[in-house]
Parts: sequence; structure tokens; C-alpha cells
Amino acid sequence: MPHINVDKDLPGIRSLMAFSPQTAAPMGELANLLLRTSDTLSMADRELIATHVSYLNDCFYCQHSHGAIAVCYLDGDTSLVDQVRTGDPNAPVSDKLKALLAIAASVQKGGKFVTTQQVETAKQLGATDNDIHDTVLIAAAFCMFNKYVDGLASNTPTDMSSYPLRAKQIADNGYGNHIFKNKQPVAETAQ
Amino acid sequence: MPHINVDKDLPGIRSLMAFSPQTAAPMGELANLLLRTSDTLSMADRELIATHVSYLNDCFYCQHSHGAIAVCYLDGDTSLVDQVRTGDPNAPVSDKLKALLAIAASVQKGGKFVTTQQVETAKQLGATDNDIHDTVLIAAAFCMFNKYVDGLASNTPTDMSSYPLRAKQIADNGYGNHIFKNKQPVAETAQ
Repeated sequence: MPHINVDKDLPGIRSLMAFSPQTAAPMGELANLLLRTSDTLSMADRELIATHVSYLNDCFYCQHSHGAIAVCYLDGDTSLVDQVRTGDPNAPVSDKLKALLAIAASVQKGGKFVTTQQVETAKQLGATDNDIHDTVLIAAAFCMFNKYVDGLASNTPTDMSSYPLRAKQIADNGYGNHIFKNKQPVAETAQ
Repeated sequence: MPHINVDKDLPGIRSLMAFSPQTAAPMGELANLLLRTSDTLSMADRELIATHVSYLNDCFYCQHSHGAIAVCYLDGDTSLVDQVRTGDPNAPVSDKLKALLAIAASVQKGGKFVTTQQVETAKQLGATDNDIHDTVLIAAAFCMFNKYVDGLASNTPTDMSSYPLRAKQIADNGYGNHIFKNKQPVAETAQ
């Protein structure tokens, strides 16, 4: 049961963002900037980093929400997403993305766990300064989102069919403050 | 040395925000909303929570930046701020704030470390749902800021005289994206 009086029909961070629309606005904007940009890191890469960090933080809602969005970008490849989510070293992704996922995992432990060697390895595999920056900030931001969701004990849907429905909406339309203010529960908004 | 090519004359998060002004905008807005609001949590209370979480994350730059801002709001009482920063149970603050600091410390460990008992205790001591919400989100947001600052190994001033100078500017004018874009180093902008 959530620690504060939020709308019980809304899952996870959506219930918190409806409770506090003022702070939801910059948080939604930050999510859009970090996850809906496609440059030398694709939107799939970005969601995979977010998904892995959410797994390391043991945030059920976030790892499955963002995992499902990554699946949308990766032609329905749930197997690949599950491998990256759980840190399987044999996941069929590029060596560059593996190096960035290692940096993200260090950020989750603590900023000082990121080593010069990790960064040099990523750069040798083609990562730009922007890629390093965005990887660290995605990982740091998901530590915020994960702790917000679980720190207030927000509702976590256990019906796994709800995650792909919601994911498709975000894959199609992006993040935005308006989606957090929507009072309809997942099952309804997905119709 | 920073892991990416940032302006070496700017300290801590300011160098990162100058590197990435787009993401700096919502981060600055979030900081303003969480730290420059004064309701049933004062601005001093909010900075003390941020300072303690930054200490727990071992982020030198953030714990001393925000500690110095708290000092500005508390009539120069560096002793009180140092006690709260380091988690001294005898710090002369209200029982309500102590209960909220305990919740913030749990968030720093992981969202699921926040217990119903901790929340009930805080509520019995007068904490509102908004106080609980803001405490959790301040703690979560500072996990992001701390990991961002240290994950990219941004420059940390060791000259402790620079922190009060900068703190006064923020105490007087608030956070804002413009402060992060300012290219002048701390010593110059403080003049």
C-alpha cells in the first residue's frame, strides 16, 4: 500500500506524478530528453540502459515498464531485452553498448565506482563524450525514478499484460507531463 | 580529472550543466521546486535533507554546496549543519525533521528500505503527505545529482572558502538554469 494518499487506480510513478504535477513536469521533460533522443545512442540503447539500472535497483515497475518500451523499439525481441535487463554478458548487443552498460552499473553502485578504465574502454569502442554523459545521466536519473517509485511504495501492477500496452503508447507518443496527469488506469488508457 | 571534456573552470554539476544545457533546464527546475519551496518544510529543512543524502552518497561537492546553503538559511549555524550532514542523532532539530531525515537515509539505501513504521512515526510527529512526498523525492533527486557529479568525475573545489560565496548567491537568487550556464568560475562570480 502506498505510503501517501495517491490515486490507487494509477500504477507506479504515474500515481506520484498525478499527486505532484508540478514536479512531474521537469521529470517528464528529463525523461523525454534522455530517452527519446536518437543520435549515436538509439532510443533502444537508452531504454536498455534504463531497464538494466532499474533491475539493479530492484524496481519491478520501472524495469518492466522500460523493458517493454525497449521491446517495442527492438521488433518484439523480449529475449534480448531480458538478457540485457538482467546483465547477461552474452546478450547480443554491440561491444560499445556493453561498455556503456558497465558504466551504468557502476553509477548505480555509486558515482565513484565509474573508473577511468571503463570510460577509456567505451571510448575505444566508439563512445563519444555525449554517449558517456547520457549513459551516466540516464543511470543517475533512473536511480531517482526507482527510489521515488519504491520509496513511496507506489502500486506495482503484477498483471504483466499491462506493461506492453502502456509501452506501446510511450513508444508511439513519447514521455510527457500530460501522460502522468492522465487519471485513467493502464487498462483503460490502452484501449 | 573529469571523464569527459567539460569546462575545467567550472566546479561540480555546473560544469556538467554547461556541457549539456538541454538536460540542465529540467534539472534546475526540479531543484528549484524541491529546494526553494517553503511550506510545512522550510527551505532550511529541504537543504538539510539534501545535504545529509549527499553525505551518505559520499559526494563532497554536493554535501558542501548544499550544506553551505543551509548555513545561509540558519543564521550561519555551521555546527548544526555539520551535525545534520553527518547524521549526528543529537543535532538540535525537531523530532519531525529527524523522522524525515531517517526516511531520506532509507531512500539513499534503496526505495524499499523505507518502512511503514518510519512513515507512521513521521506522520505522528506532524509530517503531512506532502512532507513525506517531498522528502522522498529530494532524497531520490540527490541520488541523481550526486551520481551525475561523481559518475563523470567532475571537478570538486577543495578550497572550502568557495562554497559559502556560491551558497549566498543561491540563497539570494534560487536555482535556475541560468546559473549553470554561467561560464565564470565560483571565485569570479562571487565578486
